[in-house]
Amino acid sequence: MPEVSRRLVSLSPQGQDGWEIYREARERNLKGEGIIELTIGEPDVKTDPSILDAMHASARGGQTGYPVVPGTDALRTEIARRVQSRTGVRTVKNNVLVTPGAQMALFATHLLTAGDGSAALHVDPYYPTYPGTIRSAGARPVSVPTSAANGFLPNEQALDAAWATYRARSLLINSPNNPTGVVYPAATIEAIARVVQRNDGWLISDEVYDTQVWEGNHVSPRSLPGMMDHTLVVGSMSKSHAMTGSRVGWIIGPERVIEALRKLAVVTTYGVPGYIQDAALYALQMGPTAERKVCEPFLRRRNMLLDIAKGYNQLELVRPTGAMYAFLDIRKTGLSGEDFARKMMNEQGVAVMPGESFGRCAAGHIRMSLTVKDAQLQEALPKVFAMAVDLAKQKS
Amino acid sequence: MPEVSRRLVSLSPQGQDGWEIYREARERNLKGEGIIELTIGEPDVKTDPSILDAMHASARGGQTGYPVVPGTDALRTEIARRVQSRTGVRTVKNNVLVTPGAQMALFATHLLTAGDGSAALHVDPYYPTYPGTIRSAGARPVSVPTSAANGFLPNEQALDAAWATYRARSLLINSPNNPTGVVYPAATIEAIARVVQRNDGWLISDEVYDTQVWEGNHVSPRSLPGMMDHTLVVGSMSKSHAMTGSRVGWIIGPERVIEALRKLAVVTTYGVPGYIQDAALYALQMGPTAERKVCEPFLRRRNMLLDIAKGYNQLELVRPTGAMYAFLDIRKTGLSGEDFARKMMNEQGVAVMPGESFGRCAAGHIRMSLTVKDAQLQEALPKVFAMAVDLAKQKS
Repeated sequence: MPEVSRRLVSLSPQGQDGWEIYREARERNLKGEGIIELTIGEPDVKTDPSILDAMHASARGGQTGYPVVPGTDALRTEIARRVQSRTGVRTVKNNVLVTPGAQMALFATHLLTAGDGSAALHVDPYYPTYPGTIRSAGARPVSVPTSAANGFLPNEQALDAAWATYRARSLLINSPNNPTGVVYPAATIEAIARVVQRNDGWLISDEVYDTQVWEGNHVSPRSLPGMMDHTLVVGSMSKSHAMTGSRVGWIIGPERVIEALRKLAVVTTYGVPGYIQDAALYALQMGPTAERKVCEPFLRRRNMLLDIAKGYNQLELVRPTGAMYAFLDIRKTGLSGEDFARKMMNEQGVAVMPGESFGRCAAGHIRMSLTVKDAQLQEALPKVFAMAVDLAKQKS
Repeated sequence: MPEVSRRLVSLSPQGQDGWEIYREARERNLKGEGIIELTIGEPDVKTDPSILDAMHASARGGQTGYPVVPGTDALRTEIARRVQSRTGVRTVKNNVLVTPGAQMALFATHLLTAGDGSAALHVDPYYPTYPGTIRSAGARPVSVPTSAANGFLPNEQALDAAWATYRARSLLINSPNNPTGVVYPAATIEAIARVVQRNDGWLISDEVYDTQVWEGNHVSPRSLPGMMDHTLVVGSMSKSHAMTGSRVGWIIGPERVIEALRKLAVVTTYGVPGYIQDAALYALQMGPTAERKVCEPFLRRRNMLLDIAKGYNQLELVRPTGAMYAFLDIRKTGLSGEDFARKMMNEQGVAVMPGESFGRCAAGHIRMSLTVKDAQLQEALPKVFAMAVDLAKQKS
């Protein structure tokens, strides 16, 4: 068989991919083991039926031909209106490209900014697809370390140093953050903005959790002075409207860049199905009450988590200020995240993600998704916390 | 504003993109001019309502979560069954990756095979996105010329020469062909297979028109001896089931390559919406009668075209043996395809595509899409033929 390109061979390292626990839990549950899965970041809330009915009405109404590649005027205008009202930055239709999901938006923005083999920075810990997405787009992923001691916030000096060392073209950030559940404070976003402007580079800001902010405020870096021409914001309907399966997201950026990304879409995805675009438009027009209904369970469970955590001394929980995850430091147990997660699944029937799946800086941590029913969470969290505290006691 | 990557800047040359006549006709029709548009390759047949109802039932039934990235087992199995029954080649689920449209399949296969900067051959004339798709995937597009005198069929010696000169990694072919309406005869496919095997390269076979064969047989190159491990077949629901807007296609290839393409999908598209996959499955299970219903209008119009053409002496029509296009040689008029198309639109109210939009070898030709109602075609074709014959007479 002829060779495949080096880029794709290198896409995924051989061996473990970090999702072993997730897959094993799935398989064991198919056999009826009843493991509680706190692994995957998929809302347990389903897409609202009225959104699906709107989609059907659009399809039956004839929206089944080739899509308008950059997105319909109506949807782009509505997304622009939403972004402007949430961030205060003037945003028009031509600042918006509709994409088949945020994942494709991340790929396209990296291809655009650094796809000629340049270095593209991202923060460690990170969403597991980031390095592969960057590599597939023809760029070189370089992770910038953060530390648990500093709440996993990127540091201005470390960012500048990485930028200079690797002559980076872009920086990818994600706030509210997966996996840590941390919302970057304004000072961190301001520091990032300084680094990006100082280096005349691009900031790719993955804001797919921007409706899940439990404490403080989400600051979109595009809203800071001078950042409009340096920022590409990636958004999505997945988390805000529980539309993960519909694969619809967007990129917000300068008009010239959106036009270049439109050309890329013509020769890659050829747009998003028209009836899905109409469904997204309908969903956005449902307004804030509908959005609150989607994210309310995650706030409720996050508060439940904080309540339960109070009962465990020595627990080193990263305070979740946003998104639908809780991140627990288990280094005092002496175990790696992987060993802890495996022990947890085998002995207690609860599956969690090892921090190592999200980068080296997340080692010795575990991520718990708040995406199961409250009762399951109520059962699972004390088991996790108790094991962490017990093992730490034995160790000390 | 910071720079964008060279690859994207180079994606589309500045200035004309070949779709000027199409867009002008659209705009003039919005003002009510009543131009007959024989430009775009979109079936005028709509997606069958029962397919849309199946999609709605799937969505309301809960298929709204993250998709199964390589495609659902049921859909991959059905596509494999279909490919095996149509080509005789053993094909299983793991030979199939479901993609959001054939366009993304073309992008992914080129990224896989030649995305490290290698040359990727394609035949001229070509579907207009091909060079941009190849370039965006990080490969170098090299067109292999064909001639009208030889029915636009690629020639074994020319292919071998291009392969050697550019150290190509792959060859992209499209039969039945857009824009020429030609189905490659078995001898041509066999010659192509020899070239690919001799050079130990990849054949990317775009077979999206494989249900539109009006004369002879469509030979899928994957069915030839030794070609299973050298061929990536690109297919789609767009033309066979009038599902252009649903963006659902597939890649057929060796299991190892499909697994690599699955990994690429995880970090780019993250799959095709589950309810669209269920709709595609339903559509494929509708069977051959439903497919005939979709392509029957194109056969009928193609026969109408041949009938009308009989009345015009000197007409140099490429005999359409497949797909939904007719390709007319207008070199005897002394005009370029572009000038002929513009004159045709301005003086006769019929919009056709200039051959030049499809590559240098298509210069002096025009493409007519058989995608308008029969009555419109009956009105438009004699005008096109008469102008071609009249201008040729004046010239001679």
